[in-house]
Amino acid sequence: MRFDEAYSGNVFIGANPDYNESKVVLYGMPMDWTVSYRPGSRFGPARIREVSIGLEEYSPYLDRELFDLNYYDAGDIPLPFGNPQKSIDLIEDYVGKLLAEDKFPLGMGGEHLVSWPVMKAMAAKYKDLAIIHMDAHTDLREHYEGEPLSHSTPIRKIAEHIGPKNVYSFGIRSGMKEEFDWAKENGMHISKFEVLEPLKEMLPKLAGRPVYVTIDIDVLDPAHAPGTGTVDAGGITSKELLASIHEIARSEVNVVGADLVEVAPIYDHSEQTANTASKLIREMMLGFVK
Amino acid sequence: MRFDEAYSGNVFIGANPDYNESKVVLYGMPMDWTVSYRPGSRFGPARIREVSIGLEEYSPYLDRELFDLNYYDAGDIPLPFGNPQKSIDLIEDYVGKLLAEDKFPLGMGGEHLVSWPVMKAMAAKYKDLAIIHMDAHTDLREHYEGEPLSHSTPIRKIAEHIGPKNVYSFGIRSGMKEEFDWAKENGMHISKFEVLEPLKEMLPKLAGRPVYVTIDIDVLDPAHAPGTGTVDAGGITSKELLASIHEIARSEVNVVGADLVEVAPIYDHSEQTANTASKLIREMMLGFVK
Amino acid sequence: MRFDEAYSGNVFIGANPDYNESKVVLYGMPMDWTVSYRPGSRFGPARIREVSIGLEEYSPYLDRELFDLNYYDAGDIPLPFGNPQKSIDLIEDYVGKLLAEDKFPLGMGGEHLVSWPVMKAMAAKYKDLAIIHMDAHTDLREHYEGEPLSHSTPIRKIAEHIGPKNVYSFGIRSGMKEEFDWAKENGMHISKFEVLEPLKEMLPKLAGRPVYVTIDIDVLDPAHAPGTGTVDAGGITSKELLASIHEIARSEVNVVGADLVEVAPIYDHSEQTANTASKLIREMMLGFVK
Amino acid sequence: MRFDEAYSGNVFIGANPDYNESKVVLYGMPMDWTVSYRPGSRFGPARIREVSIGLEEYSPYLDRELFDLNYYDAGDIPLPFGNPQKSIDLIEDYVGKLLAEDKFPLGMGGEHLVSWPVMKAMAAKYKDLAIIHMDAHTDLREHYEGEPLSHSTPIRKIAEHIGPKNVYSFGIRSGMKEEFDWAKENGMHISKFEVLEPLKEMLPKLAGRPVYVTIDIDVLDPAHAPGTGTVDAGGITSKELLASIHEIARSEVNVVGADLVEVAPIYDHSEQTANTASKLIREMMLGFVK
Amino acid sequence: MRFDEAYSGNVFIGANPDYNESKVVLYGMPMDWTVSYRPGSRFGPARIREVSIGLEEYSPYLDRELFDLNYYDAGDIPLPFGNPQKSIDLIEDYVGKLLAEDKFPLGMGGEHLVSWPVMKAMAAKYKDLAIIHMDAHTDLREHYEGEPLSHSTPIRKIAEHIGPKNVYSFGIRSGMKEEFDWAKENGMHISKFEVLEPLKEMLPKLAGRPVYVTIDIDVLDPAHAPGTGTVDAGGITSKELLASIHEIARSEVNVVGADLVEVAPIYDHSEQTANTASKLIREMMLGFVK
Amino acid sequence: MRFDEAYSGNVFIGANPDYNESKVVLYGMPMDWTVSYRPGSRFGPARIREVSIGLEEYSPYLDRELFDLNYYDAGDIPLPFGNPQKSIDLIEDYVGKLLAEDKFPLGMGGEHLVSWPVMKAMAAKYKDLAIIHMDAHTDLREHYEGEPLSHSTPIRKIAEHIGPKNVYSFGIRSGMKEEFDWAKENGMHISKFEVLEPLKEMLPKLAGRPVYVTIDIDVLDPAHAPGTGTVDAGGITSKELLASIHEIARSEVNVVGADLVEVAPIYDHSEQTANTASKLIREMMLGFVK
Repeated sequence: MRFDEAYSGNVFIGANPDYNESKVVLYGMPMDWTVSYRPGSRFGPARIREVSIGLEEYSPYLDRELFDLNYYDAGDIPLPFGNPQKSIDLIEDYVGKLLAEDKFPLGMGGEHLVSWPVMKAMAAKYKDLAIIHMDAHTDLREHYEGEPLSHSTPIRKIAEHIGPKNVYSFGIRSGMKEEFDWAKENGMHISKFEVLEPLKEMLPKLAGRPVYVTIDIDVLDPAHAPGTGTVDAGGITSKELLASIHEIARSEVNVVGADLVEVAPIYDHSEQTANTASKLIREMMLGFVK
Repeated sequence: MRFDEAYSGNVFIGANPDYNESKVVLYGMPMDWTVSYRPGSRFGPARIREVSIGLEEYSPYLDRELFDLNYYDAGDIPLPFGNPQKSIDLIEDYVGKLLAEDKFPLGMGGEHLVSWPVMKAMAAKYKDLAIIHMDAHTDLREHYEGEPLSHSTPIRKIAEHIGPKNVYSFGIRSGMKEEFDWAKENGMHISKFEVLEPLKEMLPKLAGRPVYVTIDIDVLDPAHAPGTGTVDAGGITSKELLASIHEIARSEVNVVGADLVEVAPIYDHSEQTANTASKLIREMMLGFVK
Repeated sequence: MRFDEAYSGNVFIGANPDYNESKVVLYGMPMDWTVSYRPGSRFGPARIREVSIGLEEYSPYLDRELFDLNYYDAGDIPLPFGNPQKSIDLIEDYVGKLLAEDKFPLGMGGEHLVSWPVMKAMAAKYKDLAIIHMDAHTDLREHYEGEPLSHSTPIRKIAEHIGPKNVYSFGIRSGMKEEFDWAKENGMHISKFEVLEPLKEMLPKLAGRPVYVTIDIDVLDPAHAPGTGTVDAGGITSKELLASIHEIARSEVNVVGADLVEVAPIYDHSEQTANTASKLIREMMLGFVK
Repeated sequence: MRFDEAYSGNVFIGANPDYNESKVVLYGMPMDWTVSYRPGSRFGPARIREVSIGLEEYSPYLDRELFDLNYYDAGDIPLPFGNPQKSIDLIEDYVGKLLAEDKFPLGMGGEHLVSWPVMKAMAAKYKDLAIIHMDAHTDLREHYEGEPLSHSTPIRKIAEHIGPKNVYSFGIRSGMKEEFDWAKENGMHISKFEVLEPLKEMLPKLAGRPVYVTIDIDVLDPAHAPGTGTVDAGGITSKELLASIHEIARSEVNVVGADLVEVAPIYDHSEQTANTASKLIREMMLGFVK
Repeated sequence: MRFDEAYSGNVFIGANPDYNESKVVLYGMPMDWTVSYRPGSRFGPARIREVSIGLEEYSPYLDRELFDLNYYDAGDIPLPFGNPQKSIDLIEDYVGKLLAEDKFPLGMGGEHLVSWPVMKAMAAKYKDLAIIHMDAHTDLREHYEGEPLSHSTPIRKIAEHIGPKNVYSFGIRSGMKEEFDWAKENGMHISKFEVLEPLKEMLPKLAGRPVYVTIDIDVLDPAHAPGTGTVDAGGITSKELLASIHEIARSEVNVVGADLVEVAPIYDHSEQTANTASKLIREMMLGFVK
Repeated sequence: MRFDEAYSGNVFIGANPDYNESKVVLYGMPMDWTVSYRPGSRFGPARIREVSIGLEEYSPYLDRELFDLNYYDAGDIPLPFGNPQKSIDLIEDYVGKLLAEDKFPLGMGGEHLVSWPVMKAMAAKYKDLAIIHMDAHTDLREHYEGEPLSHSTPIRKIAEHIGPKNVYSFGIRSGMKEEFDWAKENGMHISKFEVLEPLKEMLPKLAGRPVYVTIDIDVLDPAHAPGTGTVDAGGITSKELLASIHEIARSEVNVVGADLVEVAPIYDHSEQTANTASKLIREMMLGFVK
């Protein structure tokens, strides 16, 4: 007598209740304790699920339906408030298990630091892994005012882990001079300000490689994503971000996992950011998982 | 690998996933299509569940814990948008089934009209049923500008169905003169403005009888419940409403079902109304179900 | 083919479209240019009208209906933005005309300075005029940082105009020490913190006198009136303010005009303050005008 | 002594109080009872009028002033809450009367279902009627979970009524696969994602024909119209929508009526959507009515 | 040429720029990384200062002015994001220095965990220290889901440090059964639900002792303090909290330090909580420091 | 023991506390008393400073850091509420002093009228001054409903003062027909709707001249700047505005002063406008001051 969960907002719309049948596993990482500015992204995954009931299952962009795909919504990983190290360990462990069972991990943040343990787990499985990173911020700090576990450091960590030349950042419009310099000196790719055009240029070079895609919602202009911790003017539109996802979907790269982070419902007064995020999740699933 | 639902905000905190083991069934009635003023209560039940994760399981008022009770959260009844008659039929049918299986129905609205089919189903089972009604509004209209299915009519309907003298309204501070006159002429009890004191007086008269308790959150002052469709100044405090629930809990009446309606998250900017509602649900469960 | 204005939110609910037939004239004074803190009360009168469609015409407190009364809603006086002196002159002139035609003026602010020209016009007609003033603030400054036309000065101005001993302030919980001292030294009445009890004591002394009632919505606690320029904790409830209005209504004083000021919709996120104000206007009309 | 209505926010700025003198009749359809997601558009027309006081009467786009045109603002049609069928009948009847008196009907919603009875009335008068439809959503469902009267069905209804090949949809980015398929199979025109460029191509084909223009505000990206029921990322800008209106204005089509629907002030925290809608109404009047 | 800081919102209104001349030091502890529910209190101290410009310097409750007192506003202690242990150490160190220089520390949170290092520093100086604690929550957990550094543990920590019988909690309405049991078994005082009356009874027993007062703003009902992390219905009014502060001020206890925590501006849509907090700070200063 | 001001939100991030060492002086003009629509920009400068703590000091657009520049943040000029004339005089006097000491004045409004006294002071120093004006509105009225001191008049005033042919407006999309006509007849430059392209064309003509740049934040589309008094659809993006500033920075004009006005935090629910404004201030400093 429990009413249909798949259309209740408790799970992402249309999710398959059977883990074993599912190729994709959608999971939340409700952590926001290292952010230097506005917290609140812990509630992002829950709100994205909730508003997903407003989505159509069909993508007119990709001419494909959610019914064509099996995905399981695992809910949010319970993370210990205020303990970044333990949170990171729990995430790495969880994603490691998903990969061992050959699932496609599709994560929802939470602050961007959550992507670090995920990418580490991905790198353990995929030796030739490349990262496609869309963000307003470099996230290349070594530490933030002394703290190495910070939402400003995940891309630095993965770049050092798999080699900076395997990391491709797009849409970057904010960072310390030292971060841009470090990227340059170490052969890491940064496309400033724009995403779609440089992506078109770069994708052929990544053809055939396993790629993890990490999207910080603040790559969007604040007009398109007010509901995030650190808004930064001069960003791209949601139309451009959709087109970028579709560009990857149609390319020769082999997307092996992805995440979307930093949705903070507290600042999202008309829920536009959560709605946009939930559409992006649909397009990422339909576009990245064949 | 699905993370624990009972503490996820997807169901009311601590809910038992097993329907059969549960005495209480919590269910949502997400309908708001007949309201004459501000719609939005369709999202009430979902938000009450979501914020319930902030609740303690223990009531220091009643010295009792949610662990002492088995309750199942059935989710929201799927109701057809814009079709009041069919919605009402679906609710009556559903509650009838719960009663047939000897459950204690605890409903969450939605607009107040949803209480009408519930009370009708209750009356079918309990021949001597009395209604305790807490509200800012009489809800005694025959119709609203020609529409008999309206959020302004449920108390009139049940009063005509079981006899006006079996209906006890408290806290009423708004209505048409005709409604107050009708109540008076037909022997229905209305306590204007106050709840706790008149309730203390009235409860002994209802001792031993099966009682259904229907609470419109707008019995609270707008200061205590801004998140509702029709706010009305001069109401009671949340402290008084809690005390009124406890007064019933400690009385000799036999509560056989209850609901809490008209929480509209859209107007509830700091989620105070949803949080209050979720605490009220806890106290109603712990107080009404022995 | 224009749909019924009286129930449109364009005028206060139930207003009579005929000025001549009407005893009461409701008018707005949309001025907020001298406030020292948060502006926005210029939109107060319009929003009070708009939400009045949610009101019942019947008062269960006074057992009287709006249908029993003829009142005209004149709309908002067009006031020149940023020019306090000219605004004040226009208001005084307008209210003078209403009084000449023997209307009962019921004003809606706007900042509290608008009450000064109204009270001056009242004093010109009623020689023995007394003022009942409910407010969080003394409003007894001579000037605000050099500006004599300020929302902090209207009560000082009228007190000097008709004599401080004819002014009775209630609910005051904020002001400079000099203001309280000035009141004391000049025989003006101030009841600190409370309204209802001191009013009960004071009203018999005013029996038979013409009285103007000016209510700053911030006499209410911020819980009950967040939508105002200068909120101040420790105020009274809306229940107490309603009771105070009813106390005056049942007393022997002769209310000859009234206003309600400082509703600022911008800060009133669930419109609770505007709804409360619109109920207060109804009770003032039904209680003060026989 | 009533202050000038034409600049009060009670009617659309500059409206002529004389119905007979007016070519255009502006009217509201405050219905939102069939929406499947977020209700609240019932308050759209009132808010659009209210904020219209911030508009200039002059359009620098069209070099034309509102003074050049006579338009009457009829207010909102009183519609029965929760009764879609009766609401629809009232609207059809009203617009039929306007057309009989040779008025240009300019409607404001309300949910999109309100356009169905309007278009039906238009089709009764104009035999060769074509529809230009701008929207994020196809609105081509036969029913929504069993309900044929739904905000998801109006374009299907008019397409079946006047023939699908006479309906031209632009900007569509959401719908069920079945809806897109139905359109394709039945010769209905759908331009996905874009409005301006396909419109330029299509308008010459419609030259000389009577055209009704129906705009769902959600054709705009959520960045440009957060205040609507169902936001959907990837939409057009307000600049593009203005240009599209101007493109129609300068074309050879004969616009015989128009509407703008789905503005929901509740989600419009800075009133940007209402302000945009009010500018769109001005441009539609100045552009469509010669 | 820097405009006057004391009235700019950069420091608490009327603060003395000279640290040495000042008896009181006001300081912020902008930490919120261990909270289990809604974060955001890191911005509390800054907003309290900002809105303090709306305060009068005079207290009509205590008949005393801020001019009578020298207080320095030190700004916010820079705390490392996401590192609770280091944050706590920095706070303890800072307050230790203040006490060494014989200042009266008046802290603003931040989450309640910040009070733990402050109370520890106080206990190091004052051997017979007692704690007066006003809160909705017991805060007596040993750990929160394994984390001993949590906003749910500060009172447990200080109780174990100075002995439970030296801790007096008031207004408590939420906690685990185990927490209430622990208090009872260990001789700690808890007054459930109420503050003022039990305080009147308890204060004489504390006469002459050094007392630290820690106030969690959520001791107020959500109606009076929506802007906090964990709202809980059934609380006291701001009038009662003011009266409780005045009761302490007039008692024989020797207040040696105090704090006010958990103001979270993000949820405080009309800034009412921040305004209330800033008034409470004024009354605490004027009442506690002779 | 005062914690570092430069990173506290009390001053713009990275400001030099030494006035004498600083080339740039940043100052606020917190005036909003003449606005005809929504007030609140008085709080703009304070909020821009507050959110500046979220900024990086480095501009990847200009490859320059704030550390390369000395700028002093003078705070807000104390202006008399409700007295436009005196406010204007105070501003003119203050900026005159800055210019006498050879500072680069960088002002933050407040309503646009504040730019008038600034430009007047600039014109007194720079005989060949030209104005670059970016705005949605012409601001060319002689008076607003009789008031010559209005937020609708500053560009008219400076145009009459230095000659209309020295004033260059960009992005204009709103105004009375008379204003556009006046500009045309008097040789003033107006680029309608667009900023970047016409600026590229115009800048070479201004090469070598002293230029004052005044930016009304509402030149941005409401999507990019909801937090302002008068939003107007069809505006430019923040990306275009940034590019326009950079275009001026790279041109041959000699920028001698600048301002950014009309940020109104009250309508800026996710603080996106304030964040954008603070980034614009950074780019204006780094781009305009060599």
